Amino acid sequence: MALLYKSDPARGAEWAKILAQKAPDLSFRIWPEIGDPKDIRYFAAWMPPDDLMTQFPNLELLISVGAGVDHLDLSKLPLGLPIARMVESGIVDGMVEYVSMAVLGLHRDLIDYAAQQRDDVWKQIRVRPAATRRVGVLGLGMLGEACCRMLNNFGFQVAGWSRSRREIEGVTCFVGAGELPDFLGRTDILVCLLPLTDETRGMLGADLFAQLPKGAKLVNTGRGGHLDQDALLAALDSGQISAAWLDVTTPEPLTKGHPLWSHPRVLVTPHIASMTQPETAVDVVLENLRRHHAGEPLIGLVDRKRGY
Amino acid sequence: MALLYKSDPARGAEWAKILAQKAPDLSFRIWPEIGDPKDIRYFAAWMPPDDLMTQFPNLELLISVGAGVDHLDLSKLPLGLPIARMVESGIVDGMVEYVSMAVLGLHRDLIDYAAQQRDDVWKQIRVRPAATRRVGVLGLGMLGEACCRMLNNFGFQVAGWSRSRREIEGVTCFVGAGELPDFLGRTDILVCLLPLTDETRGMLGADLFAQLPKGAKLVNTGRGGHLDQDALLAALDSGQISAAWLDVTTPEPLTKGHPLWSHPRVLVTPHIASMTQPETAVDVVLENLRRHHAGEPLIGLVDRKRGY
Repeated sequence: MALLYKSDPARGAEWAKILAQKAPDLSFRIWPEIGDPKDIRYFAAWMPPDDLMTQFPNLELLISVGAGVDHLDLSKLPLGLPIARMVESGIVDGMVEYVSMAVLGLHRDLIDYAAQQRDDVWKQIRVRPAATRRVGVLGLGMLGEACCRMLNNFGFQVAGWSRSRREIEGVTCFVGAGELPDFLGRTDILVCLLPLTDETRGMLGADLFAQLPKGAKLVNTGRGGHLDQDALLAALDSGQISAAWLDVTTPEPLTKGHPLWSHPRVLVTPHIASMTQPETAVDVVLENLRRHHAGEPLIGLVDRKRGY
Repeated sequence: MALLYKSDPARGAEWAKILAQKAPDLSFRIWPEIGDPKDIRYFAAWMPPDDLMTQFPNLELLISVGAGVDHLDLSKLPLGLPIARMVESGIVDGMVEYVSMAVLGLHRDLIDYAAQQRDDVWKQIRVRPAATRRVGVLGLGMLGEACCRMLNNFGFQVAGWSRSRREIEGVTCFVGAGELPDFLGRTDILVCLLPLTDETRGMLGADLFAQLPKGAKLVNTGRGGHLDQDALLAALDSGQISAAWLDVTTPEPLTKGHPLWSHPRVLVTPHIASMTQPETAVDVVLENLRRHHAGEPLIGLVDRKRGY
């Protein structure tokens, strides 16, 4: 009975150390040092190989080391194989930090001041109270909810939108396609934390931008696939969107010379909003192995129909 | 009995509107429309004129529209004239936003990513949990304390240093010159929120930097006079300081061509960390007028000996 790991090797080495302490009886292997493939019962991976079930005939459980599973072709994975997304506090904490930084940065005109600094220009922009700034979070899963709660601490007017009805204290919650226009119409800073599915792909496009107040700002910490980048560039040029803070792009890495790199109203970071933290991730993996054997519901079990 | 205002005229016009509603009987005048100088009993100013008492013989109360009074030469103001700093929630909220943005930005390597973006470079830096990052706040007045509390929400290891002993839940508090070395030795990100006095002028210099861990980062939201800019540039070159986020400089505005503008490890904003918000400021001014007449202690009364 072995757990195979296939992702960033440096973090894999940390998993090994932590597992040696917390689960000394578990055989832990780091790709490509697989050993006997028949031993592999559990597989923690960012990108598993195509011939997963052929290569590991005794596989019982697939664990994504990321919060999303949109990089997996779920249709090629046997229905009987449970898949768990990584739901661990390290990912949540990192995302809350990043989204708070991005929203505060857009709220406090950081992209304008960076442009001024390039030209040695000292010019004050009036500070607008957070209480007059309407932030809207697309996606109210574990990450979206945690971000809403932190943004509330700063006094922003926070709203959220999700597919199914949610209730979060201090947050105005909108639901479904019917309430999306109202949500967008009251949103000065839009944060995307949606899962990437067939329904949400390309959702951040011209139609959606046109429903935001003129000059709205965008944070994308979902996936590059949520965003129509050409539509964003057009909206930036027209002033419909006044600034964008992107952690995810298409493609990744973003190609040299891509207009997003040099756009004065765009800030790009290389998909670092949040990363699985070995210490907390290992705890969740061990808990999921325990639940798997006890027949209890897994943490982060992927619903094949919803796609996340 | 009139209140005279001398600062940003746009905000002055807002004060006028708010005062007309909240205190219709108070005569409010905006510099230079003084009217009869003998009417002026209260003066809310950023920079009062030199001949203050000659010009306004009946002046009873001077109110700084900023959180600090370091721009005033207190020795030239009669001891009998009470001076109140602006202590209002709008200033506190703005500072909490800015300091959170700056600390998160330094914590999450934003200055590195901005440099990468200039070169079209997509390279991830490992995310370090906030729980392993030690933030230290110099100055635990109203602003410092509020910032410590917000930084605590993100899980940073927060410490503070002040002249007199403070106790803040979840914050390790250091006091006085004797405990300064211990405070600096445990600080990865240093935030300056001190008042500017003869004791604190130039405090952010070579000696202090040398006591921080190698590669520490700096946020200055105090005053330009706290920082020895040449020492900072030297510390950035040696790597003793790895990044600086400055809202205040010497001089202000920072001159065109100054090396701080173009330094790749420095982010400069034009003294906008926080601004007095008319709505909340007027409430405090009216409360101070009431207290003044009732003989009660003023909010933000300046201690002439401490200098703040």
